[in-house]
Amino acid sequence: MRLSRYFLPVLKENPAEAQIVSHRYMLRAGMIKQQAAGIYSWLPLGYRVLKRIEEIVHQEQIRAGHIPLLMPTIQPADLWRESGRYDDYGQEMLRIKDRQDREMLFGPTNEEMITDIFRAHVNSYKDLPLTLYHIQWKFRDEMRPRFGIMRGREFLMKDGYNFDVDKDAALHAYNRHMVSYLRTYERMGLTAIPMRAASGPIGGDNTHEFLVLAQTGESEVFYDDRVTGLKLGQRDIDYDDRAQVAKVCEEFTTLYARTDETHDQAVFDKVPEAHRKVGRGIEVGQIFYFGTKYSAAMGAEVSTADGGKVPVEMGSHGIGVSRLLGAIIEASHDDKGIIWPEGVTPFPVGIVNLKQGDAAADAACAGLEKALLAKGLEPLYDDRDERAGAKFATMDLIGLPWRITVGPRGLEKGVVELTSRRTGQSEEMSPEAAVDRVAQIYPGI
Amino acid sequence: MRLSRYFLPVLKENPAEAQIVSHRYMLRAGMIKQQAAGIYSWLPLGYRVLKRIEEIVHQEQIRAGHIPLLMPTIQPADLWRESGRYDDYGQEMLRIKDRQDREMLFGPTNEEMITDIFRAHVNSYKDLPLTLYHIQWKFRDEMRPRFGIMRGREFLMKDGYNFDVDKDAALHAYNRHMVSYLRTYERMGLTAIPMRAASGPIGGDNTHEFLVLAQTGESEVFYDDRVTGLKLGQRDIDYDDRAQVAKVCEEFTTLYARTDETHDQAVFDKVPEAHRKVGRGIEVGQIFYFGTKYSAAMGAEVSTADGGKVPVEMGSHGIGVSRLLGAIIEASHDDKGIIWPEGVTPFPVGIVNLKQGDAAADAACAGLEKALLAKGLEPLYDDRDERAGAKFATMDLIGLPWRITVGPRGLEKGVVELTSRRTGQSEEMSPEAAVDRVAQIYPGI
Repeated sequence: MRLSRYFLPVLKENPAEAQIVSHRYMLRAGMIKQQAAGIYSWLPLGYRVLKRIEEIVHQEQIRAGHIPLLMPTIQPADLWRESGRYDDYGQEMLRIKDRQDREMLFGPTNEEMITDIFRAHVNSYKDLPLTLYHIQWKFRDEMRPRFGIMRGREFLMKDGYNFDVDKDAALHAYNRHMVSYLRTYERMGLTAIPMRAASGPIGGDNTHEFLVLAQTGESEVFYDDRVTGLKLGQRDIDYDDRAQVAKVCEEFTTLYARTDETHDQAVFDKVPEAHRKVGRGIEVGQIFYFGTKYSAAMGAEVSTADGGKVPVEMGSHGIGVSRLLGAIIEASHDDKGIIWPEGVTPFPVGIVNLKQGDAAADAACAGLEKALLAKGLEPLYDDRDERAGAKFATMDLIGLPWRITVGPRGLEKGVVELTSRRTGQSEEMSPEAAVDRVAQIYPGI
Repeated sequence: MRLSRYFLPVLKENPAEAQIVSHRYMLRAGMIKQQAAGIYSWLPLGYRVLKRIEEIVHQEQIRAGHIPLLMPTIQPADLWRESGRYDDYGQEMLRIKDRQDREMLFGPTNEEMITDIFRAHVNSYKDLPLTLYHIQWKFRDEMRPRFGIMRGREFLMKDGYNFDVDKDAALHAYNRHMVSYLRTYERMGLTAIPMRAASGPIGGDNTHEFLVLAQTGESEVFYDDRVTGLKLGQRDIDYDDRAQVAKVCEEFTTLYARTDETHDQAVFDKVPEAHRKVGRGIEVGQIFYFGTKYSAAMGAEVSTADGGKVPVEMGSHGIGVSRLLGAIIEASHDDKGIIWPEGVTPFPVGIVNLKQGDAAADAACAGLEKALLAKGLEPLYDDRDERAGAKFATMDLIGLPWRITVGPRGLEKGVVELTSRRTGQSEEMSPEAAVDRVAQIYPGI
């Protein structure tokens, strides 16, 4: 993409309304525009990152054997009356009347609807296990929307629901979600720690939140800091292997890590003092086993192998897709701007032409662009007639992890410069070597 | 994907509520489930086709130089007051009050919001031309939703908006859209004919609808049947070349083709009688140049090269993404079910195991699945313990264009059978040859 033809409305000034760094940088980097309180347009750069994050979530859900579908945003109130939540939900539910005066709502979550889909089509244990998920826009009418897309009203979320014949199978689904979430966050360059969560009015012990450590987090967190060193890495996971999946979960949930909601000081005190940490965290996901709460209320039953009938065992599991952009920026930035992890960057590499209009520089940049595109790597080429300083400032602000700088002086020596956004370190090399290096950095693409 | 692990709730009976073939087959093939009048869940198979169609629309818009972003579903009423449409729009607009009693609406279209984004960030002719588009769920509260997703209330649409400094540039953007739409429909296996449309209250001559011929179409159409033979094919288009793009548009709009809204019998009578056809068509897109209607009302101005200021020239251009599934099925089916064009099929090929549990057949199917996956082609493998007849009926109903049938008798001869859904013709060949053949059919993947 050439910047002269792109729509990247960067702001020079810090917007007064932004209280946290992710909100500030998303506005300044031309990623979002507020359209109403807590409601945002995703401008082209923000949209690209959102799509990258969405794609990673899809890939890891599919790898875990979960099946994508798509439920609508607007739901009939009657479904929610079946579970009793229509009256319970309160003012965060955006309630709507259509032209026929029927009561509808903009879905804040989908337990009722997915249970409705299940009961309409499945009635035998032979069709289980089954996990269905979607990534869809949801609406919660927050009293005080704030922090940009971190606590917006219209937000993109992955929510998935498992259906199993018994509690053991449902807990395996729970564990499968935990592992797939760990991999999802790792691919985004995040350390998201599963912390035991409060189960709320539904009850049940099996719920974890995933928290990214950040000073601006909304939750106070208490943890053994060795938990931040745990990594899934490239290990092979067989998601059908209950023992293997359970072992990974044990590995990631044994060290103390809790939010203020579930914190137990007496247990925490047993953590060696050198590892005992208190900080703040941003919630980026939650998994929840709730058994038969919805299936019993809504009549979603399956036949069992011995000829009986039982309400199906369920859980729901969510990732805050749009919120992740904010969490990643909170966790990865400096005073010049965003530093995107390679997994989610809107463009893998930027090209800065130091002297637009110089025949050699223009040709070298066009050549780099073409060579990168041929490798499936779309660069953002700043081909504007601007000073080098302004071009560098823009690249630093929008946070592409790698930059290739091209100028007449380097070209005389046959070199361009490859710079890491994270370390700031530059290295001179031939244009061909720069392309190869970038291709090595992004092997998956 | 193995069918035993998938969620494909096919129906044996024709659903009573479905009046047209696409609605009937989408329900029977387990592609959609109605959640309220005109509001559908997209079950896994339907969701896969929807994503394919969405992807093709994205690719062709990006090829034309248009830039994707994403606007929210919920909009503030005040924006629509600026254009005067809040009062004009009538009952099809889903109006909402939030918890603060602010007037909001579920966007039926986005002229106001995109103009708002433009005016906030662009003020010079130097930043033009610019075309922004998104693919987003919209809501129109139809009085009588019907025909499944063909005339639903919540629907997925691509809407794009061009911003240009003068009328000539805006008409080039109009032409660019026409050509990119022609290519989009062709890739989906559709013949969509651009027909001069009525401009409505906005005025202006430059609007075309794209219609797919089908007996169940809502519009009566009058056309010279030579228009159905026009194809873009693989020709190279330089979307920056105004003359080339205009020439393609001329080629596709010279022969008579109009809906009942713009039909002119006197002109139609001049078409040679052998070519004069009257039929019905389904609208799958519309392009519209409307000049400064919104930019003037909303103060979206740009400076010009001579130092003046003008309201920016605009047009809006839409493709009915979810509706296209219905249109494709209406245009491509037989009495056994859907026949997906290769460009949009949910799976490129199906594998039918005639004798599940037979060691040789199971191994051959698993081998085919693996070899296809290695080529980036995900098959749907019917590994259920069902009769061959039931498996064939399911494959025919869901309409995968190619099927590989594997049975013990063929394997003794070293062959499997490759069958075309469209022609019904089968050919015996080695499993390796079948994989190669399928890979040749889908070169783009």
